[in-house]
Amino acid sequence: MTSRPAKLRYGMAGGGEGAFIGAVHRIAAAMDGDWELVCGAFSSDGDRNRRSADSLRIGAGRAYASVEAMLAGENQLPPDERMEAVVIVTPNHLHKPTAVAALDAGFHVLSEKPMALDLTEALEIEAAVVRTNRLYGLAFTYSGYPMVAEARARIASGELGRIRLVEVAYIQGWLSEAIDADGHKQADWRTDPARAGLGGCLGDIGTHAFQLAEHISGLTVEAVSADLNIHVPGRRLDDDVSALLRLQGGATGVLRASQVATGVENDLTIRIFGDRGGMEWHQMEPNSLIVRWPDRPFEIVRTGGAGVGPSSTARQRVPAGHPEGYLEAFANLYRRFAQTVRSGGTTPPPIDTPEWFPGIADGIRTMTFVQAAVANHRSTEKWTQL
Amino acid sequence: MTSRPAKLRYGMAGGGEGAFIGAVHRIAAAMDGDWELVCGAFSSDGDRNRRSADSLRIGAGRAYASVEAMLAGENQLPPDERMEAVVIVTPNHLHKPTAVAALDAGFHVLSEKPMALDLTEALEIEAAVVRTNRLYGLAFTYSGYPMVAEARARIASGELGRIRLVEVAYIQGWLSEAIDADGHKQADWRTDPARAGLGGCLGDIGTHAFQLAEHISGLTVEAVSADLNIHVPGRRLDDDVSALLRLQGGATGVLRASQVATGVENDLTIRIFGDRGGMEWHQMEPNSLIVRWPDRPFEIVRTGGAGVGPSSTARQRVPAGHPEGYLEAFANLYRRFAQTVRSGGTTPPPIDTPEWFPGIADGIRTMTFVQAAVANHRSTEKWTQL
Amino acid sequence: MTSRPAKLRYGMAGGGEGAFIGAVHRIAAAMDGDWELVCGAFSSDGDRNRRSADSLRIGAGRAYASVEAMLAGENQLPPDERMEAVVIVTPNHLHKPTAVAALDAGFHVLSEKPMALDLTEALEIEAAVVRTNRLYGLAFTYSGYPMVAEARARIASGELGRIRLVEVAYIQGWLSEAIDADGHKQADWRTDPARAGLGGCLGDIGTHAFQLAEHISGLTVEAVSADLNIHVPGRRLDDDVSALLRLQGGATGVLRASQVATGVENDLTIRIFGDRGGMEWHQMEPNSLIVRWPDRPFEIVRTGGAGVGPSSTARQRVPAGHPEGYLEAFANLYRRFAQTVRSGGTTPPPIDTPEWFPGIADGIRTMTFVQAAVANHRSTEKWTQL
Amino acid sequence: MTSRPAKLRYGMAGGGEGAFIGAVHRIAAAMDGDWELVCGAFSSDGDRNRRSADSLRIGAGRAYASVEAMLAGENQLPPDERMEAVVIVTPNHLHKPTAVAALDAGFHVLSEKPMALDLTEALEIEAAVVRTNRLYGLAFTYSGYPMVAEARARIASGELGRIRLVEVAYIQGWLSEAIDADGHKQADWRTDPARAGLGGCLGDIGTHAFQLAEHISGLTVEAVSADLNIHVPGRRLDDDVSALLRLQGGATGVLRASQVATGVENDLTIRIFGDRGGMEWHQMEPNSLIVRWPDRPFEIVRTGGAGVGPSSTARQRVPAGHPEGYLEAFANLYRRFAQTVRSGGTTPPPIDTPEWFPGIADGIRTMTFVQAAVANHRSTEKWTQL
Repeated sequence: MTSRPAKLRYGMAGGGEGAFIGAVHRIAAAMDGDWELVCGAFSSDGDRNRRSADSLRIGAGRAYASVEAMLAGENQLPPDERMEAVVIVTPNHLHKPTAVAALDAGFHVLSEKPMALDLTEALEIEAAVVRTNRLYGLAFTYSGYPMVAEARARIASGELGRIRLVEVAYIQGWLSEAIDADGHKQADWRTDPARAGLGGCLGDIGTHAFQLAEHISGLTVEAVSADLNIHVPGRRLDDDVSALLRLQGGATGVLRASQVATGVENDLTIRIFGDRGGMEWHQMEPNSLIVRWPDRPFEIVRTGGAGVGPSSTARQRVPAGHPEGYLEAFANLYRRFAQTVRSGGTTPPPIDTPEWFPGIADGIRTMTFVQAAVANHRSTEKWTQL
Repeated sequence: MTSRPAKLRYGMAGGGEGAFIGAVHRIAAAMDGDWELVCGAFSSDGDRNRRSADSLRIGAGRAYASVEAMLAGENQLPPDERMEAVVIVTPNHLHKPTAVAALDAGFHVLSEKPMALDLTEALEIEAAVVRTNRLYGLAFTYSGYPMVAEARARIASGELGRIRLVEVAYIQGWLSEAIDADGHKQADWRTDPARAGLGGCLGDIGTHAFQLAEHISGLTVEAVSADLNIHVPGRRLDDDVSALLRLQGGATGVLRASQVATGVENDLTIRIFGDRGGMEWHQMEPNSLIVRWPDRPFEIVRTGGAGVGPSSTARQRVPAGHPEGYLEAFANLYRRFAQTVRSGGTTPPPIDTPEWFPGIADGIRTMTFVQAAVANHRSTEKWTQL
Repeated sequence: MTSRPAKLRYGMAGGGEGAFIGAVHRIAAAMDGDWELVCGAFSSDGDRNRRSADSLRIGAGRAYASVEAMLAGENQLPPDERMEAVVIVTPNHLHKPTAVAALDAGFHVLSEKPMALDLTEALEIEAAVVRTNRLYGLAFTYSGYPMVAEARARIASGELGRIRLVEVAYIQGWLSEAIDADGHKQADWRTDPARAGLGGCLGDIGTHAFQLAEHISGLTVEAVSADLNIHVPGRRLDDDVSALLRLQGGATGVLRASQVATGVENDLTIRIFGDRGGMEWHQMEPNSLIVRWPDRPFEIVRTGGAGVGPSSTARQRVPAGHPEGYLEAFANLYRRFAQTVRSGGTTPPPIDTPEWFPGIADGIRTMTFVQAAVANHRSTEKWTQL
Repeated sequence: MTSRPAKLRYGMAGGGEGAFIGAVHRIAAAMDGDWELVCGAFSSDGDRNRRSADSLRIGAGRAYASVEAMLAGENQLPPDERMEAVVIVTPNHLHKPTAVAALDAGFHVLSEKPMALDLTEALEIEAAVVRTNRLYGLAFTYSGYPMVAEARARIASGELGRIRLVEVAYIQGWLSEAIDADGHKQADWRTDPARAGLGGCLGDIGTHAFQLAEHISGLTVEAVSADLNIHVPGRRLDDDVSALLRLQGGATGVLRASQVATGVENDLTIRIFGDRGGMEWHQMEPNSLIVRWPDRPFEIVRTGGAGVGPSSTARQRVPAGHPEGYLEAFANLYRRFAQTVRSGGTTPPPIDTPEWFPGIADGIRTMTFVQAAVANHRSTEKWTQL
């Protein structure tokens, strides 16, 4: 144990009463003792904002009526009281304006995905990051799992040989009924193009699948052929995505994303095969990484188990067999963001260090994919380059 | 128990020493006591043919040097000694000529898949079946599993509601190295267009995946967008297939087939989702059918277990928990073929009876798919109609 | 392929209409083409006996009214027509008299388990085998699974080091209701001490668990502390067994057997740990053998997969990933019995050859266990020696 | 969201540098924002104590040299600064003296298990709790899992009918080598009778298994027959436990605990069967509860999924399919302890409310079991009453 720097003070944009993901962020931030919530603009509804602040032990003076007020108000506080980072957990259409404003006001930003409504907005954020020299992190939570880090490290080391196949699928069933038409809070804005962006399911979870595919395989997707479908009548954005992929170096693959796979919870699965072996990971059983070989029995590599490397070890808290889950994966992102700020970094550490976390680069790639998939879907051409 | 008709006498085309699938057919035929091997043209190599016959207790007089000789020779025997059906277990390029000749010589035919090299040949077989009024069965073995029958029956009954999504994947790893270039008997002809046909992996296992998808879902695939790849340098036919599917009634889906998924044994998986529920089946754990619901816990329906219907019960031999496997599924096809012959049928029984088995219709559909997938792959158009 | 000897001609004692296990034996005998059913005393009910014979294509002349009649009748036939072996699939109380009579009449015997009602009877059979020099096999079917053979071979080779722990559990739920009181054919005699023997669940499936534990571990159980329970009111024999075990060389363990584990199908699981590693096998997923190590990821060894040895390979028929099940395991016993007869053997081949199958030795051990467990249960002593 | 009371201020006894379980407690305490670490006596080694405090942002003034100093020092602080509870994460032999001293000094106590070295000590703690009217919680973490709560609630409601069978097994492999002899910090004291107590494996994890068995089944264990073994030469306390159980109302069962199951991580499994159904839960896949029925397919009830009741819902933080694990289960205990203190409670809420957490009652029962198991092991009697 070494002396520990002060907690990173943060404010939340969004995340008020009834919001799901805001509470998740607060747990992830609290878990390792590296963050402290000091203020927020939790809701545009004044009453809800106050109640949210109260329940979070935020005094009235730091429960701001708007993000603008929060940025201005905090900047008037002494540096050692002032928030240092803004966590953005609003609906998608507010990601860009909030991020750019926060960066320009001098704050670091940790944002929910997708990065923005479209690639144009994403590039605006990137420009703001460059301009302000602030740190920007993006909640591609699944890359925080120890076994995802292990998979990437093994593939990067050449363990599977030359990669040939990448299959990724992220399927859910929660939108299999028209709950968006019934005013379900989470479903409502996710199916509204003005607030969700170019893609529905594509933007919401297709981006997770894409980020994971590129992150683990270490390969860039070069072209996509996409079929975006709306299966629930009246819905305005895709609720199901199938896409053929062509990746760097001749690898090929498929990406599936669906929110109408009735009865499925949150099944994100990736399989990658090279000429020397294969790997498989399931988000719902996240502590196992299946590794296959042509000439010996397949192995189950386990979080904290024998044979794991430093990138996964650094993302693990308890001994093997004590399951770690989604919140721990999320906390891994938070811990790394805070450590980077404290060590003066303004970009995520290099991708193959144990300290890496997802940021601008992942955001730009995923929005590029969304744009290409939508373009391809609208054309009669088979392939669209990314 | 009721009085049982005499065993069905059959001859084999192919299946000599060293052949894998011939032995499988003989076990499947023997299992329920409904078939008897009486002759064969096991190999074009005379010595191998004789040794094969000897090991199978076939006398020299009925170990024929060629299929032609077998057809002629058997037709000279008294009707109650003569073979009644020909089982075709040769490489693909011999399927059509053997089937047509056997049908025209008056014999029933049970053939390995794929039906033929291409759709044109498949239609020739269909014409011969119509012309001769003989029974024709096709070894789409996986449709013989009890839980496949259960899945189809439940979907046909409307249990899942309107079908929206069909995902099927059949992946193997045995061709991940260039064993075909090294003279591996099974691999050699499967990667030779002259003997394998239009598709490599597509014809060999993509057809299984396609047949299963249409069979279980009860829906016709209407259009395909396919990416056929060769991942092992020097190979002449596709060893990996990814395809987007559009099915009847607005359902969409994906078909994957691969023989270069290094380390994977024989993973055929299908998932189907409707607006009321979803189902999932894995060939490597064939006695479980996972059924998911939007509003209650998911269920595992089991071969021989509680809640199964007559189509699966009719395909089961031992109590739940005593695993049944691939050979039993295969034997289900054999048993049904024999029963149909004995009851005078010349086509498979209706698809939703417990007595159904795959035949001409499945063959034509799968060859139509192969043709469309290859055509699509060669074009720049996104979709090709089937 | 080599020239194959004539099929082994067998007669059945029991196994008429409505019997479950008789049909299983016939499938197992038929599967590899090594056996031929030529006669039977299928039922003591004359009509049922005739109908059974008819359905099995056995002529009236060889459907015998009793085992005695079968033994006498067959011995009047010419040696090359006469049956060579008797398969005993009657309720337990008939195992001993039938086996002894058949042996004394000069026939080989393949019997269902448990060997007999008690150890005394088992020793009578053993004496008859010695006296007649005929082959005796016992249907400890689970030892026919490829992965059971693999587990034994690996442990025998010292792969797990010195064995410390043996845990075996065989649980079922089919007797969780009082179906025996309602005249259920299978349940009725299994819960009647006069026909089932000393143990209920203990004899019926506890013997399987015990045989597997000794067979795989290679260790002899030296002492037992047993708790035999009757959970369904009115039942006369134990329906649930828990036992502490002490084995050779200081290993310890537990044996569980139950027929009142409501909702469980046929869950036979064994785990063995040594000072260098551990193994786990589940009968309901029989093609996987889990092997654990202290210092590297655990492995899944698969039927027909990479890294398996000759004893499991010899018990496998189809490539890895094509599931083999209970009937194939059973057929492995039949194939080996027939091969041993044809090669002139009068005892099972040595236990660590691929040709081994269970016989007298396994029977005596299991009946010894039953006797010791019952004795211990009735005493207040903690341990009873075997 | 409602207004939230101030964080509960706590001090740690133990948990300094290099301690495993102390860090786990701090994460669990931090997760929901209900606790604040304000002081500690982290280590009897002064340097280590200071370094630990520093790394935890505890000022020098509240890093106490001993528990006694901490209790005295804190009591001199103003009530609104003073710690309110002591968390005990020392080796076992310090549990009792620390708990009693803390209680007598007016503090609430949350202690690691086992409660104490033996039953006598446990009763001393109980007396202190009664005397001081302070709250006492015990870290039977596994009862904090949502699906454990669900299992208990369903059984309590009669869903499985009358309970017949209880099987619980907690096996690990980390002590399969003599790491205790090599100075491994965790292993060292756990195998020393003076510091670990009456039981080795029995006390360390056998108590977890016992607590879970009684908690989920709702039944009291009435008698035990135990076999305690030492498998690693030179070890002074049992490293492996097998026990037969007799429970209230005629239920029977088995308890297994082992720390020499080579290669096994942390496999705690429980199966309970009643006359109407059965349940099964595995700690390493904690978000699934398998529910079996005699007359319909078995179900997988999932954390946060359809069909779950209030006791499990109250222990869940994220939607179904986002895995929750060990740390969340632990945090559930912490959250409940804090809520109880804030609402003025001095005992855990009633066992069938969502607010329940384990305390004195669980501690006394488990120490009673340890005592009976050791006594039985040392006697030749089969059964010892609890």
